Amino acid sequence: MENLSALFNPASVAIIGASGKPGKIGNIILKNVISSGYGGQIIPINPREKEIEGYPAYASVTEVPGSVEVAVIAVPAAGVLPVVEECGRAGVKHLVVISAGFKETGAEGLEREKELVATARKSGMRVVGPNSVGIMDTHTPLNASFAAGFPGRGEITFISQSGAMLVAILDWSLITGLGFSKFISLGNKSDLNEADFIAAVADDPTTKVILCYIEDVADGLRFLEVSSQVCRKKPIVVLKSGTSQAGAQAASSHTGALAGIDLAYEVAFRQAGVIRVPTMAELFDLAVAFAQQPVPKGDRLAIVTNSGGPGIVATDSAERQGLTIARFNKATLEALRAELPREANIYNPVDVLGDARADRYRFALEKVLADESVDSAVVLVCPTATAEPGETAKAIVEVARRFPDKPLFGVYMGGEILKEGVDILSAAGIPCYTFPETAISAMRGLAQYARLKNSPLPAPRPVFEGVDRERVANIFRAVKEDNRLVLLGSEGAAVVEAYGIPVSPTRLATRAEEAVAVAEEIGYPVVLKVASPKIIHKTDIGGVRMGLDTPGEVMAGFWAVMSNVQRSLPEVIPHGIDVQRMAPKGTEVIIGMSRDVHFGPLIAFGLGGIYVNLLEDVSFRLAHGLSRMEIEKMIMETKAFTLLRGYRGQKPADIAALVDIVARVAQLVIDFPEITEMDINPVFAYVSGAQALDVKITIS
Amino acid sequence: MENLSALFNPASVAIIGASGKPGKIGNIILKNVISSGYGGQIIPINPREKEIEGYPAYASVTEVPGSVEVAVIAVPAAGVLPVVEECGRAGVKHLVVISAGFKETGAEGLEREKELVATARKSGMRVVGPNSVGIMDTHTPLNASFAAGFPGRGEITFISQSGAMLVAILDWSLITGLGFSKFISLGNKSDLNEADFIAAVADDPTTKVILCYIEDVADGLRFLEVSSQVCRKKPIVVLKSGTSQAGAQAASSHTGALAGIDLAYEVAFRQAGVIRVPTMAELFDLAVAFAQQPVPKGDRLAIVTNSGGPGIVATDSAERQGLTIARFNKATLEALRAELPREANIYNPVDVLGDARADRYRFALEKVLADESVDSAVVLVCPTATAEPGETAKAIVEVARRFPDKPLFGVYMGGEILKEGVDILSAAGIPCYTFPETAISAMRGLAQYARLKNSPLPAPRPVFEGVDRERVANIFRAVKEDNRLVLLGSEGAAVVEAYGIPVSPTRLATRAEEAVAVAEEIGYPVVLKVASPKIIHKTDIGGVRMGLDTPGEVMAGFWAVMSNVQRSLPEVIPHGIDVQRMAPKGTEVIIGMSRDVHFGPLIAFGLGGIYVNLLEDVSFRLAHGLSRMEIEKMIMETKAFTLLRGYRGQKPADIAALVDIVARVAQLVIDFPEITEMDINPVFAYVSGAQALDVKITIS
Repeated sequence: MENLSALFNPASVAIIGASGKPGKIGNIILKNVISSGYGGQIIPINPREKEIEGYPAYASVTEVPGSVEVAVIAVPAAGVLPVVEECGRAGVKHLVVISAGFKETGAEGLEREKELVATARKSGMRVVGPNSVGIMDTHTPLNASFAAGFPGRGEITFISQSGAMLVAILDWSLITGLGFSKFISLGNKSDLNEADFIAAVADDPTTKVILCYIEDVADGLRFLEVSSQVCRKKPIVVLKSGTSQAGAQAASSHTGALAGIDLAYEVAFRQAGVIRVPTMAELFDLAVAFAQQPVPKGDRLAIVTNSGGPGIVATDSAERQGLTIARFNKATLEALRAELPREANIYNPVDVLGDARADRYRFALEKVLADESVDSAVVLVCPTATAEPGETAKAIVEVARRFPDKPLFGVYMGGEILKEGVDILSAAGIPCYTFPETAISAMRGLAQYARLKNSPLPAPRPVFEGVDRERVANIFRAVKEDNRLVLLGSEGAAVVEAYGIPVSPTRLATRAEEAVAVAEEIGYPVVLKVASPKIIHKTDIGGVRMGLDTPGEVMAGFWAVMSNVQRSLPEVIPHGIDVQRMAPKGTEVIIGMSRDVHFGPLIAFGLGGIYVNLLEDVSFRLAHGLSRMEIEKMIMETKAFTLLRGYRGQKPADIAALVDIVARVAQLVIDFPEITEMDINPVFAYVSGAQALDVKITIS
Repeated sequence: MENLSALFNPASVAIIGASGKPGKIGNIILKNVISSGYGGQIIPINPREKEIEGYPAYASVTEVPGSVEVAVIAVPAAGVLPVVEECGRAGVKHLVVISAGFKETGAEGLEREKELVATARKSGMRVVGPNSVGIMDTHTPLNASFAAGFPGRGEITFISQSGAMLVAILDWSLITGLGFSKFISLGNKSDLNEADFIAAVADDPTTKVILCYIEDVADGLRFLEVSSQVCRKKPIVVLKSGTSQAGAQAASSHTGALAGIDLAYEVAFRQAGVIRVPTMAELFDLAVAFAQQPVPKGDRLAIVTNSGGPGIVATDSAERQGLTIARFNKATLEALRAELPREANIYNPVDVLGDARADRYRFALEKVLADESVDSAVVLVCPTATAEPGETAKAIVEVARRFPDKPLFGVYMGGEILKEGVDILSAAGIPCYTFPETAISAMRGLAQYARLKNSPLPAPRPVFEGVDRERVANIFRAVKEDNRLVLLGSEGAAVVEAYGIPVSPTRLATRAEEAVAVAEEIGYPVVLKVASPKIIHKTDIGGVRMGLDTPGEVMAGFWAVMSNVQRSLPEVIPHGIDVQRMAPKGTEVIIGMSRDVHFGPLIAFGLGGIYVNLLEDVSFRLAHGLSRMEIEKMIMETKAFTLLRGYRGQKPADIAALVDIVARVAQLVIDFPEITEMDINPVFAYVSGAQALDVKITIS
C-alpha cells in the first residue's frame, strides 16, 4: 500500500496563497500550521510579501531554497493550475488543495480538476482535494487546514467527504474531549480517495480505528480490495449517506457524484469487512469504544446491575442487537450464590441489589469477568440511597485492569449524584453512558468486529477454464447486428451453455418443419415459446405450448402459437419459436444480475417461479471476489434454502450444482461488461444436478 | 375515569413510620414532603415521638384530629396490615405504600399483598404500591417519596414500574433541566396500575405527555380501553421492557410478573394508540418534543441546512423513519430562488450554504414554514467560519413564534462555538440536538402521534346473532368426557359451523359403510382423513385419500387409510375417519388464534397451504375490539393480499367473506375462553365466498 507518511509528517509545508490579513483563508491556514506546534519548516508563499506571521515568504514555491514536501494550495481556482505546475517543478511530494471551484461547479470545473490531477501526477505528486478543508495529524503535530481548532491527541482517524461534517465533529470533540489521530477532508477526491487513506493508515501506529463519512466511493473495487485487507488489522467504521431516494438526490446535487444504489453499498460493505453504522451518534460511540477498549473474543456479554428494570432494558437491547447473554459456569454461580445476598439474581443479568456498595460490585464483576464463558461486560449503576458511585467506579477500573482482553463499559443512569463515578471511569478510558442501550450498541460493534477480524480471508473467486468466450462474443455481435439489445431465449441458452452452465437444449425455429426437426434432434417432449424480445408475458397471449410429444403436436403447436401471437399482437413479427426440451420439474430458483455503477455486477439468488416478485426472497453478492463459500452463504440466507435442503420430507437438492451455476454466471458477467442485465428464471434444482430453463440477457 | 386528584393534591398527608433519625426512610420521606414546599397539613405518625422535624407527631393515624387524605406508609411489611386498617377507620382516601416485602418476595408476600388491597378497598381506599418509591407532583407541590431530589416543574408525567429507573431519571433530569409534572412509582401494582394513572392524568391540565416504563400490564383489556381513549387527548409514550427472551426471564425473576409474549404487546400497543419506543433515550427525547412543541398536521418535513453532508444525513434519516420530505410549492421555490445565492439548493433539503449568516437562515426558514405543504421543520447549523450561532438561534426563535402550529427542532452540530445558540434555543423551548438523526427521530414521534390523534375512534367489533353457543358447549363437553383436549376434524368443523363459518361438510365415520353413507349424504367427490388427535402429519403416513368419486372408492379408501395407519403407527387407535366433501381449489389462507395471558385471544391471518411455515407471512390483531376495518387492514398487511386482490391477471377473491370469517372466529374465541389454540388451514377464498377446510381446535 502506498506510503503517504510524507503527507502527514512532512519535513516542510508551503502554504501557497498565505496571507497576513486576519480572516483570509490563507492566513487562517498559516496560523493553524504554526499554532498546531508543527516542528518542520513553514514556508508562506505570496508574491507580494517578504514575511508573513514572522516567517520569510517566497513569491513562488520554485524559489524556496530547500525542498518542499507538502504544499497547501489556497489560491483562487483560476490560479491553481500554474501553481501546481510550479510545485511539480519544485519537487513537491504532495498537494492539499483547499481551493474550491472545480467539479462541484459543473462541466468547466470538472475539466479544470482533471487537468489539475494530470499535471500533478505527471510530476509524481498526489493530491488531496480540491475543495478540501485540509488535513490534520495530532501526533506530528500538524494542522494543515482552515478549520477552527485542533483536536486532542488520540487514536481515531476520521476521513470525511463532507468538510462541514469534519468541522462540526472537530468542534464537538473539543467539548467532549474525544482525541483524534488524523482528520482528513477528502474534498472532491480528484486523486486521493477514501481507499487511499484507509490503506495509508493501515499500519499507522497512532491509528486504532478508522472512521469514514462518505457520500459515494470513488473506486468501488479498490475500496473492496483495500478494506477487506485493512479490516483484519483495524476496524473501519463507515457512515454512508445518500441511502434514501431523497438523500441520494440531495447527495448528487451536492457533490455531483453518481450515488449508485444503496443495496450495492450494503452488499459491498459486508464483503469489504466494513462496519456500517446508521447514525452519526453510533459512528462516534463506536469510535470511542474501539479507541479505548480491547476487541472481545466473542459476543457473550455479562451484565451487572444494582436494579432490575435497567438490567432488563440492557438485556432486551443486547438480545435485539444480536449479542449473547453469557451463561455463567458453575463455579461462577456458586461463588456469586455464596457471597451475594439471597435476594440477588446470580444469573445474567446479575442483580447485586439496590443496597450494593462498591465492594459488592467489585466482587460480582470480578467473578463474571474471570468466567471463561464471558467475553465482555456492562456495569449498570443506578443512584440508589446506598450507591457509592465514586468508589464503585474505582472498583470497576481496578477489576477492568486485571482483564485487559475483555471490553467493559459503564452505564451510570443519572446525573449529579453519579458525576464523580462517571469522571473516574472516563479518566480511566472506560466509556460511560447514561442509558444502557448506547453501551449495548457499542458493544455489539466490538463483537461484530471480533467476528470480522477472526474470519478467514475470503477465498478467491473460482475461475473456470474451457469457457467459450469467442462463442459468446459472436452471439453478442450477431444480436447487435440485428439491431437488438435483448437476446432471444435460444441465444441466452447458447451464452450460458458456452460458460458451462447446464441448460435445457433450446433452438430457434422459424418454420414448423424446422421446429419438428429440432424436436427430433433434442428429444421429446418439448415446449414451444414464441421468440420475440417485444413479448414479455408469453403465456398470457397463448405464446407457449407445453408437453408436445410428437411431430404432429409440434407442427400443430407451432401454428397455434403463431396465430395466437398474430391475433393478440398483430404489430409484432416474432423472430420465430424457441423449441426447448421439457425439463423434469425441480425446485425453482432464480439467479439474476444487475450492474452497479461503482461495484459492477451484483448477483441475486432466490426462490423462483411465479411467486418470485410476490415473495421477494432474494439475497445478493457482488460478482467480484465471490468465492464458493460466499455463494453457499448467499443461498443459505434465502427461504429458498429451506426448500432446497429438503422441506417436509423431500430429498435435498444439489446445492453444489447451484453454487457452480452462480459462480459461472459471475465469471460470465465479469468477462462481458456489456451484459447490463441477466436473469435465469427458473433454474430447476434436482437431487442431482441443476438446469437453467429460461435465460434473459440484455446487453449494451 | 376515576378521580385521583386527592392523591396528587391532598389537603393533608400523614407519613406513617415517620422518623426523626437522618438516613431512616421515614425521615427521608417526611423531609421530602416538607422540602417540596407542600402547602397542606403534614402529619408524622410515630408511636414513640411527640414531634418530628418540627411537626406534631401522633401515635396512630386514628388519633389525628382532622382528616387525612393521603397516608404514606413506610413501616416494616409485618406492620403494614394493622396500619391499613387504622387508615380505613380514620377515613384516609389513598395509601402510598413504600414498604417492601410483598409479592416480590414470594407466595407469603403475595398473600399479604392481597390482604392489604382487600382491607384498603373495604374502606374505599386506593393503594399505590406496595414496594413503591412514592409519588411526586411538582405543581401541588408534593414529594411523597424517598427519592433524593425533586424535579423542576414541567408537563411530563412519568409512570414507572421500576423504582430505580424513576430515581435515575429524576437524578438525570436535575442536570438536564427537564421539567416534570408527576412522578409515579407503581411498585407492585397491587391496586392502582398504569391504566389507572393514564386515566387519572387524561384531563390533567399540567400533563401534556404521559411516559410509561412498564415490564408488564396489570390488566390488558383495561389498558387497551383506557389508552385508546386517552391517546386522542394526549400522547402516551411507552417503553416496555422484557421484550427479549432473556429480558422476559429477567423481568419474571425481578417482579414475579408473567410477561406475556412481546408480539401481543406490540399488537396491543398499536391497537391502544400508544407510541412505543425501543430505547430510554427515545422515551425522553420524545417527552421533550411533546412537552415543548406542537403536534404537526402531518408528516411533511422541511430541512434547512448550511452544509450539504449533514443535510443528506438528515434526509436519509427522515426517509428511513417514514417522514415525507416536503415538496415546496412554486411560490416558495421562486422566493428562495430570488433571494438565495445561485449555488444554494432551494429544493428540500434547503442548503443556505456555508457562508450563511442569521438573516439568510431567517429568510429561508420563514419561507418554508409559510408553505402550506410543510408541516414541520428541522434547522441544521454547522460551525462554518461565517456562522452566527447566536443570531441564527434568535432568528429561529422569532420565526418559530410566528408558526405556533408547526413543530421545529434545531440541530447544532458542534460544541463550544455553537453553545450560545443552543442555549438560546433551549431557553425558548426549541429542542436542540447535536446530531440530525435524534431530531428526526423525535419529529417522527410527533408525526406518528398526529396520525393517531386524528384517526377515527375504532368501530366496535361486529357481533353476530344466531350463533349456536349451546352446540359448541356441547361439543366441548363431549370432547372432555372423551378425555381429550384436541378436537377431531369433524368436531372442529361443527364448532365453526355453529358460528356461521362456511365449512366443507365433514363427518366422522367409524366404519367403511358409514363412510359411504356420509359420502352419499354430503355428495361426491370426497376426501378421507384419519381422525386422531395423536396423528399430526396425516399425509405422510398415508392417512389421507383425495378425490374419491364412488361408493366403491370410498370403501376401498377407508380400508387403505386404516391399514396404512395400522402399519405406520400400530400403537394408535384412530377415532375413525373424517369424510369431507372435496372443495374446489381457492386461494389458500390461514386464520389462527393463540391466547395471550394479558390480552386474550390473538388472531392471525396469512398465506395458507404448505408454505405457511416457510414464508411466515402472517399479520396479527387482538380479538377484543377487532372491527371489520381492522380485519381488512390486517388482511392488507400480508403478502397473501397480493394474491387475493388478483395476482397476474387472476380475478380478485371475496375479501368480505374472509373478513366475515375472521370476525366470527374472534367472537367464537371470546365467547369460549377454554379454546386455547385454533387454526383453520386452509381457508379457501373464492371469487365469491370462502370456505374453511381443516379446523384444528385445542381446549383446556
